[in-house]
Amino acid sequence: MKTVYNFNAGPCVLPKSAIHAGIEALKDFKGSGMSVIEISHRSKDWEASMNECEGLWRELLSIPDNYKIIFVGGGASSQFMMVPFNLLEKKAAYLETGVWAKKAFAEAKLCFGDAAVKVASSADKNFTYIPKGYEIPKDVDYFHITTNNTIYGTEIRTDIDSPVTLVADMSSDIMSRPIDVQKYGLIYGGAQKNVGTAGVAFVIVREDILGKVSRTIPSMIDYRTHIKEGSMFNTPPVFPILIMTETLKWVKAQGGVKVMEKMNLEKANLLYDEIDRNKMFVGTALKEDRSIMNVCFVMEEGYKDKEEAFMALAKERGMVGIKGHRSVGGFRASIYNACPLESVKALAACMQEFEKLN
Amino acid sequence: MKTVYNFNAGPCVLPKSAIHAGIEALKDFKGSGMSVIEISHRSKDWEASMNECEGLWRELLSIPDNYKIIFVGGGASSQFMMVPFNLLEKKAAYLETGVWAKKAFAEAKLCFGDAAVKVASSADKNFTYIPKGYEIPKDVDYFHITTNNTIYGTEIRTDIDSPVTLVADMSSDIMSRPIDVQKYGLIYGGAQKNVGTAGVAFVIVREDILGKVSRTIPSMIDYRTHIKEGSMFNTPPVFPILIMTETLKWVKAQGGVKVMEKMNLEKANLLYDEIDRNKMFVGTALKEDRSIMNVCFVMEEGYKDKEEAFMALAKERGMVGIKGHRSVGGFRASIYNACPLESVKALAACMQEFEKLN
Repeated sequence: MKTVYNFNAGPCVLPKSAIHAGIEALKDFKGSGMSVIEISHRSKDWEASMNECEGLWRELLSIPDNYKIIFVGGGASSQFMMVPFNLLEKKAAYLETGVWAKKAFAEAKLCFGDAAVKVASSADKNFTYIPKGYEIPKDVDYFHITTNNTIYGTEIRTDIDSPVTLVADMSSDIMSRPIDVQKYGLIYGGAQKNVGTAGVAFVIVREDILGKVSRTIPSMIDYRTHIKEGSMFNTPPVFPILIMTETLKWVKAQGGVKVMEKMNLEKANLLYDEIDRNKMFVGTALKEDRSIMNVCFVMEEGYKDKEEAFMALAKERGMVGIKGHRSVGGFRASIYNACPLESVKALAACMQEFEKLN
Repeated sequence: MKTVYNFNAGPCVLPKSAIHAGIEALKDFKGSGMSVIEISHRSKDWEASMNECEGLWRELLSIPDNYKIIFVGGGASSQFMMVPFNLLEKKAAYLETGVWAKKAFAEAKLCFGDAAVKVASSADKNFTYIPKGYEIPKDVDYFHITTNNTIYGTEIRTDIDSPVTLVADMSSDIMSRPIDVQKYGLIYGGAQKNVGTAGVAFVIVREDILGKVSRTIPSMIDYRTHIKEGSMFNTPPVFPILIMTETLKWVKAQGGVKVMEKMNLEKANLLYDEIDRNKMFVGTALKEDRSIMNVCFVMEEGYKDKEEAFMALAKERGMVGIKGHRSVGGFRASIYNACPLESVKALAACMQEFEKLN
């Protein structure tokens, strides 16, 4: 197997232990003589796995009992619809910090028109910063934020205070740092960054905010359906949930989210320091808003014609997935929880090598 | 690894080759040096996998070009909502043949009230038969059927003629026999029986029936979204789709759906013959409506007290998943495509052994 340094933006590098556990479960699930994809989701063995998964979430993020945790298919994109269906009665406010934040807002508008309002946006500077100084309206049902913007490499790294129910899409930075769950009414995300593989989304919701809208909600997009049935209203995405459980076990084994944050800061600082030091590269995000998950950078003025050459060298050195999104250009290194320090060191070394060559 | 005869109702036994391919792809996907759950879904290698999957569907079921195929999360349960959202403008008719058919109808009623009507039902005899002689209303947008009823072991094994758009939930018998796709407007199902593992649903839809309703459809439940983006509007459930592809490759390698039907009939006949011959057991479904996927049977009058004893013997002989659903009782052997003939032979032998013991 060839050595690669995986910087994919998601799906992305996962803990080796989680992949290994996935392989073992595919061969024979808990000594049942069957693969994990051949067993009944109503079996005691699988029920134990589901409970283990929820228990790890509660433990790692200190989630209080009045918050429910559900696992559903459809990705974060389905949550863009489910959030307003379940919570928007009169009005909802959105913060626009990138493509995914825009999509969440657009979906609320598509479904409920002008009841969805935009509070602030950083579109004026191609989402290179997080808006500040805006006021959260007090007459809205909720305020929606996207904590990390994978495409632009900006991140809201503190739990903001909101006078209304705070809803956060944490698809790309959940489990990267300790969070104060109680500052949020609802947290959701797709699994395929820090908590596993594509095919399952997580929702952490304070139960008392539900059941307050007057509309009829279709069963599968009603959070209460999945809460009531323990995410087993229909057959759950078994394998993605297994990988989630194993990924969370890895987070716990590393020491939990505090240790994750320390490791993530070490990786991010190493890379940002190299970007700031190296004469050929420049970061695209405002320094104070830099993401510790996605590091975006472009060629410095005067070296714009060297982009392809660097990409070629990086490829030769084993880097995968560092091409920046087309709306930003240049490069993006996604250094999620499971991205090892050695990958970041290899990329920094490659940048230094390129500087010497030029 | 212990030997088991897997009769789970779904998730269920899958082709060994599909599980093996899943393991190999988890280790190293197409020589990329990364696991299939670590690669970008926008990569050429994954795009090729998606195309391969669609190509196999088209080939195996002779799906014409004017039908689109999409793969989405949320299981068949999400389709219960998506079908009426996309197709119901004035009225829709439903055939009630079991629990899942009831759920599909209930969801349409929940969302659109009296616009959903029931055409016929076999609830009067606990769904032991398929209603006949009913008339499909000509003023409805579509007529919805559930071709196989896993819980009750009945099946509609011919492609019915419908004067209106025919919509079929084929979750539990897709790929079990050749079908005339052109008799249907839309066919859907969860993957976790004959086409893979939980976490992905398939939809085959004649494109011209879409776009005719006046309501706004949320993006993720609008079929056109997924058609337009080739099932990549959001990150697709990568691993479940891989297992689907490998399962379809196995169907093809066996000789396709005609051979599947032959194999399925052989297994079903063997088991039904034993049920009919054996003095201790009796089938629950009307003979002419018997499913070749799920074989339901109970203890014959006079042997009702032997149920637990047979279950114990069957368990000892390695049978798994033969307990009948609580609404029918007794036993259910789910003998989907990948269930080997030897499993069915083992179960029949066990029934004979039990008869001799009593």
